[in-house]
Amino acid sequence: MTAYDEILYDVADRVATITLNRPDKLNAWTATMENSVRGAINDAAADDEVRVIVITGAGRGFCAGADMGGLQKIDANGDGRKRIVEKGEEAEVSFDDDLGPSVLEHFEGRFGYMFECPKPIIAAINGPCAGIGLVLTLFCDMRIASDSAKFTTAFAQRGLVAEHGIAWLLPRLIGSANALDILMSARKFTGEEAARLGLVNRSVPGNALMGEVADYAKGLTETASPRSMTVMKRQVYKSLFQDFNSSTSMADTEMQSSFASEDFKEGVAHFVEKRAPNFSGN
Amino acid sequence: MTAYDEILYDVADRVATITLNRPDKLNAWTATMENSVRGAINDAAADDEVRVIVITGAGRGFCAGADMGGLQKIDANGDGRKRIVEKGEEAEVSFDDDLGPSVLEHFEGRFGYMFECPKPIIAAINGPCAGIGLVLTLFCDMRIASDSAKFTTAFAQRGLVAEHGIAWLLPRLIGSANALDILMSARKFTGEEAARLGLVNRSVPGNALMGEVADYAKGLTETASPRSMTVMKRQVYKSLFQDFNSSTSMADTEMQSSFASEDFKEGVAHFVEKRAPNFSGN
Amino acid sequence: MTAYDEILYDVADRVATITLNRPDKLNAWTATMENSVRGAINDAAADDEVRVIVITGAGRGFCAGADMGGLQKIDANGDGRKRIVEKGEEAEVSFDDDLGPSVLEHFEGRFGYMFECPKPIIAAINGPCAGIGLVLTLFCDMRIASDSAKFTTAFAQRGLVAEHGIAWLLPRLIGSANALDILMSARKFTGEEAARLGLVNRSVPGNALMGEVADYAKGLTETASPRSMTVMKRQVYKSLFQDFNSSTSMADTEMQSSFASEDFKEGVAHFVEKRAPNFSGN
Repeated sequence: MTAYDEILYDVADRVATITLNRPDKLNAWTATMENSVRGAINDAAADDEVRVIVITGAGRGFCAGADMGGLQKIDANGDGRKRIVEKGEEAEVSFDDDLGPSVLEHFEGRFGYMFECPKPIIAAINGPCAGIGLVLTLFCDMRIASDSAKFTTAFAQRGLVAEHGIAWLLPRLIGSANALDILMSARKFTGEEAARLGLVNRSVPGNALMGEVADYAKGLTETASPRSMTVMKRQVYKSLFQDFNSSTSMADTEMQSSFASEDFKEGVAHFVEKRAPNFSGN
Repeated sequence: MTAYDEILYDVADRVATITLNRPDKLNAWTATMENSVRGAINDAAADDEVRVIVITGAGRGFCAGADMGGLQKIDANGDGRKRIVEKGEEAEVSFDDDLGPSVLEHFEGRFGYMFECPKPIIAAINGPCAGIGLVLTLFCDMRIASDSAKFTTAFAQRGLVAEHGIAWLLPRLIGSANALDILMSARKFTGEEAARLGLVNRSVPGNALMGEVADYAKGLTETASPRSMTVMKRQVYKSLFQDFNSSTSMADTEMQSSFASEDFKEGVAHFVEKRAPNFSGN
Repeated sequence: MTAYDEILYDVADRVATITLNRPDKLNAWTATMENSVRGAINDAAADDEVRVIVITGAGRGFCAGADMGGLQKIDANGDGRKRIVEKGEEAEVSFDDDLGPSVLEHFEGRFGYMFECPKPIIAAINGPCAGIGLVLTLFCDMRIASDSAKFTTAFAQRGLVAEHGIAWLLPRLIGSANALDILMSARKFTGEEAARLGLVNRSVPGNALMGEVADYAKGLTETASPRSMTVMKRQVYKSLFQDFNSSTSMADTEMQSSFASEDFKEGVAHFVEKRAPNFSGN
């Protein structure tokens, strides 16, 4: 396990936890943090001991958006930000995937690699979640938030635009009208409203958040076939670009492959034997 | 009216009711049941006395998924399941549709024919609804559930994948994050949560379910133009593959056609005369 | 400011308010009203004093759908309606847009021009909202309704179809199952249910509606960059036709452009100086 700057990385009970770690700045996003998150997700994807990845923030914030020091340095040519993006790109990793063609062909850009990660990534949104911090969570597969976590897209109050794919992802998650509301107004809203909007899967009292996320992640590690999770993640994100028949045809092919897998044998066996499953992921 | 194995089929007051009928097995899905459901939907589509189709389950379950006996017989080549699929395909029917090109070009696969059925199909989910049973309901046009009906996608706990189009349909119904939650975790959730997720149109107390569905179906038979319902169903499913302008252009063509229909004349006449409509469907 | 027939048009505090004004007919839609709404939106788009547009209805209704007098005149060739559509087309306006290619290539038809308007359009739905009146609101960027406002798609009870793009827009807003429910049944539902369905952004008590809308619009005029709002609106609607990478690539280009804008400079400056922003829109 490597140490990374500006994040903490921990693996326990088959769950890798990435903690954004600039608590005095509400974990404001920097190029260093971006590279560290990529590296850690890469590590977690490659680590056979890891089945689920959780991203959260240290202290009272999740991620307050781009570091304002960075934003202030951007000149009219956008060079400051450009450098950040480029540093990010240098760190781009690609995951070997022996189950079929990559989905990266469809999800490029700053965070597209997260959709390609073969393991579920869960955002545990413990506090303020703004701008690029909110974008980061949209590339996680699921989001659980503290009821009182404050969200804002932020961009419209900075004179910025809908950055890094949020204009594409939001309407598919919460509809175009709610997307335009939170993009244009950049109003602050709570985790509770985020759950009502469908922006997060659910919200829970702040002091219960990490326990809830841990229980949910534990459930995935103990009862779900890792092989099934990998295939399903790819199916769902690919389906966004497929017509129905291509998606169904892919499902049929994957179904046939699954019949030959160890996880399918175990999936039937543990049910018939009325015991907990012991999936290998193969 | 033909008798079918493993289902009940009944027509009353212009509503055809298909009841999955293996109550001792929670109506677990078999190749026989699949063929019977196809045949019954075919009959209902062709029967001028029928305007609405309801699918429900006998006893305390809706459909507990694939029959485990069947699943256990599947060998590493998937031959057991393959036979089931093939038997299903033999039964495939196609509906003549004099209103325009088929939508089946877009919805092939095991249940695609349900989207082509020119009459609304409503799932009345009275109890456990799992795996392929849940997939079946996603090909119904609307879903009303008992508050306490238990749902699960089931696949990930069997080492299986997102089968038969569910990977395509779910993100368009409840968003990709909720889709991945219920696919990966295969957790059980109630009809009440299914309604909050948007997976079912609404949930009601179990003892009120069949009454609610009957009232709703009766409303459709008495106040909605059958011709309008057929055109709207096709428009909505086609729109999932169309760009906005094609869909709007199709709407304009359909609007012009509707002006020449008996149902349009009756639609204006009953309103002006302040009486109940008496639509012919032409 | 021009006077228009059958609507009121008012500009105050950077908000243009268009009021459908046939209160004795619940503001039923006519060709004259259609032309007036287009003209007024055109004026508001061109007026540098306007940042936000609100559409509402005079009296106790929003818009009760197509004027029945008009519907009754339609003969079997649809000529009556055809004339209305054609008169509408004569009035079609196009907005110069110096920020990039038009979105109208994707949103033609009767109301597509509203998606191209570079300023946010908010529907304040104060009362009955039916048929083409409901379609009108779907082309607004956001919808806020009175809790008790009655909605109905109406078409299926007239023998008509899903007109003017509603078959395309609804499933992307509320899912295909809820879309088919309200299209086929044409049942009446309240603003409160519309909010639960996701059809409107939110509902509020009727006597609070115009105050709420005014506060929200004021927030947009005072705290959001007009330039950001224009770009975001285009990004969101374009994204419905783009793949993820094209949308993200457009976002990167727009982000670079924003760095050179006055609104970005002001967006950072007012934050650092802890004062209200004073955006120019450039």
